[in-house]
Amino acid sequence: MDEDLSTFLGSCPVPFLDYKEVLLGHGSGGKLTADLVEKLFLPAFRNPYLEKLDDQAVLEVNGSRLAFTTDSFVVTPIFFPGGDIGRLAVNGTVNDLVMSGARPLYLSAAFILEEGLSLADLQQIVRSMQEACETAGVILVTGDTKVVNRGSGDKVFITTSGMGIIERDLIISADRAKVGDKIILSGTIADHGMAVMSKREGLEFETEIVSDTAPLNSLVEAMLEASSAIHCLRDPTRGGIATTLNEIARRSNLGMLLDEKRIPIREDVKGACEILGIDPLYVANEGKLVAIIGRDEAEKVLERMRGHRDGKEAQIIGEVVADHPRMVVMRTGIGGTRIVDLMMGEQLPRIC
Amino acid sequence: MDEDLSTFLGSCPVPFLDYKEVLLGHGSGGKLTADLVEKLFLPAFRNPYLEKLDDQAVLEVNGSRLAFTTDSFVVTPIFFPGGDIGRLAVNGTVNDLVMSGARPLYLSAAFILEEGLSLADLQQIVRSMQEACETAGVILVTGDTKVVNRGSGDKVFITTSGMGIIERDLIISADRAKVGDKIILSGTIADHGMAVMSKREGLEFETEIVSDTAPLNSLVEAMLEASSAIHCLRDPTRGGIATTLNEIARRSNLGMLLDEKRIPIREDVKGACEILGIDPLYVANEGKLVAIIGRDEAEKVLERMRGHRDGKEAQIIGEVVADHPRMVVMRTGIGGTRIVDLMMGEQLPRIC
Repeated sequence: MDEDLSTFLGSCPVPFLDYKEVLLGHGSGGKLTADLVEKLFLPAFRNPYLEKLDDQAVLEVNGSRLAFTTDSFVVTPIFFPGGDIGRLAVNGTVNDLVMSGARPLYLSAAFILEEGLSLADLQQIVRSMQEACETAGVILVTGDTKVVNRGSGDKVFITTSGMGIIERDLIISADRAKVGDKIILSGTIADHGMAVMSKREGLEFETEIVSDTAPLNSLVEAMLEASSAIHCLRDPTRGGIATTLNEIARRSNLGMLLDEKRIPIREDVKGACEILGIDPLYVANEGKLVAIIGRDEAEKVLERMRGHRDGKEAQIIGEVVADHPRMVVMRTGIGGTRIVDLMMGEQLPRIC
Repeated sequence: MDEDLSTFLGSCPVPFLDYKEVLLGHGSGGKLTADLVEKLFLPAFRNPYLEKLDDQAVLEVNGSRLAFTTDSFVVTPIFFPGGDIGRLAVNGTVNDLVMSGARPLYLSAAFILEEGLSLADLQQIVRSMQEACETAGVILVTGDTKVVNRGSGDKVFITTSGMGIIERDLIISADRAKVGDKIILSGTIADHGMAVMSKREGLEFETEIVSDTAPLNSLVEAMLEASSAIHCLRDPTRGGIATTLNEIARRSNLGMLLDEKRIPIREDVKGACEILGIDPLYVANEGKLVAIIGRDEAEKVLERMRGHRDGKEAQIIGEVVADHPRMVVMRTGIGGTRIVDLMMGEQLPRIC
């Protein structure tokens, strides 16, 4: 990026957000979410674990390194092409553990049910959860159920937490990107978000858009076997790859330069995004990962990923740069450059 | 209990509950909750951890014994005399860890916020959580925030999960009660539930009824120092001491005989229960515990509890018997006996 643009951007302060009420955008994963975390949660709970702003905490317990994470799932509709809220709740938490290099071991699940939810639906969700647990090789060991009166919830919300063990002697965290590192994306973007949106909006395409929800432990295991130069790992869920890359850029205090042409996206997903006026960079994925890898090891890791069923379409989509720190810039298909910022509002509420 | 009553009871089968929809009672902690767990969750996830039906799982990880637990909190109103949903969410999960004999270490918190929630309220809740973490000596290390649209939630739901370490070589579980064991209750019953109900119903009493929400790790530590004959520990939250004692009776396949006169209850709480037609045995407590202790050690443990600020009003309220297995029977104040069954429906929705 040229100097002028960088100077211009540096002079634009992020506005101080002083809302009095929770907005839908506070759940977007974008700027308002970051605001809530930085101005409300972090000041209250300030501690070194939380301050890392990773999707999981890495804890030293009795000589073992454990990963611990939690996520609530409030997706609507609860059943969508390629999955349901139960499958998502298991895979999402498994993946948050895996992104620290941990082997996921145990899950908990807490259900908030709305009075009137069909028990047949609940049963189907629970079956999906068990299937997902078996696929990922984790055990659901503890749980809770609460019921709220009609109109105080929306069918079912599920909060899963997970515990895993980090057996390798490595530290993977959003603050470890280095200049020159390559950015690898494991496959096509925006499948999950557009599967949910298409279902919700009743859109019909020639082929059905299907969520990519999947556990990524096997893929990450293959990557870790291939190289120890894996610096950051993130699953770009809510807020999409734009949000994930911005978070890493901020935490590592470096810039990112992306190449739009190399970002894989299915034609039908691209079409759906255009119809709905949604930028696919900001759309949730539920079975993809972004990896920041040492330059010299990137090709080796990429090759290993492409040999794995969950990484067949992996691509190097850009690199970490010293220019424009804390900013993500993309060379567009038509030859210009564009800043890929954190999302301001909420474009896709309740996608996960 | 005489033979006739026992025979009569044995011939009353628990009805097979075949509802098509989730009812408020499925969240009561009583019969319908047990039904959901036994007929829906357990068959799907069946594994030895879950089958113990304790409030936490005890896991062997790399040579350490860890406790892991989760609970969602949906109490309404979110602020009540003596606490708020945040304080409850921390203390509740701390206590579920402690009831396995664990030292609580780390918590996670997942928030489901309703669009329109006051940020000042959220801030106050978060401050309460931090205070509660400090009091209990735990660190909140990871979290998540989701927002649902207006009318799809109710202000704020919080799900906390916790991890602790069991350093003593003992096993505390609901299936370990023995005939002759004494049942100790750490203090007065029904304070939390009636504090919330009084606030919700706008009842005014001479003195304000205040929730007993408190972390119990310090009290349990004192008890564990005093004796290794602590067989079961439970915090009688949702469903009250009636539910907790029924669960232990079922898991241990033994009976319980209680003495009503010895169950401590504040006069104002008793009065509120009478006005609202609620049986205090079924009302939630959030800072009390029930302990099943080897007969010869009970007095020693009781003395130690009474010397602790959180156990001043502790009482031996009954004993474990071989008669009427899986049933809790109480000698009433007026000299009769009464069966204290699991609650059928829901008397106090959204109390925690």
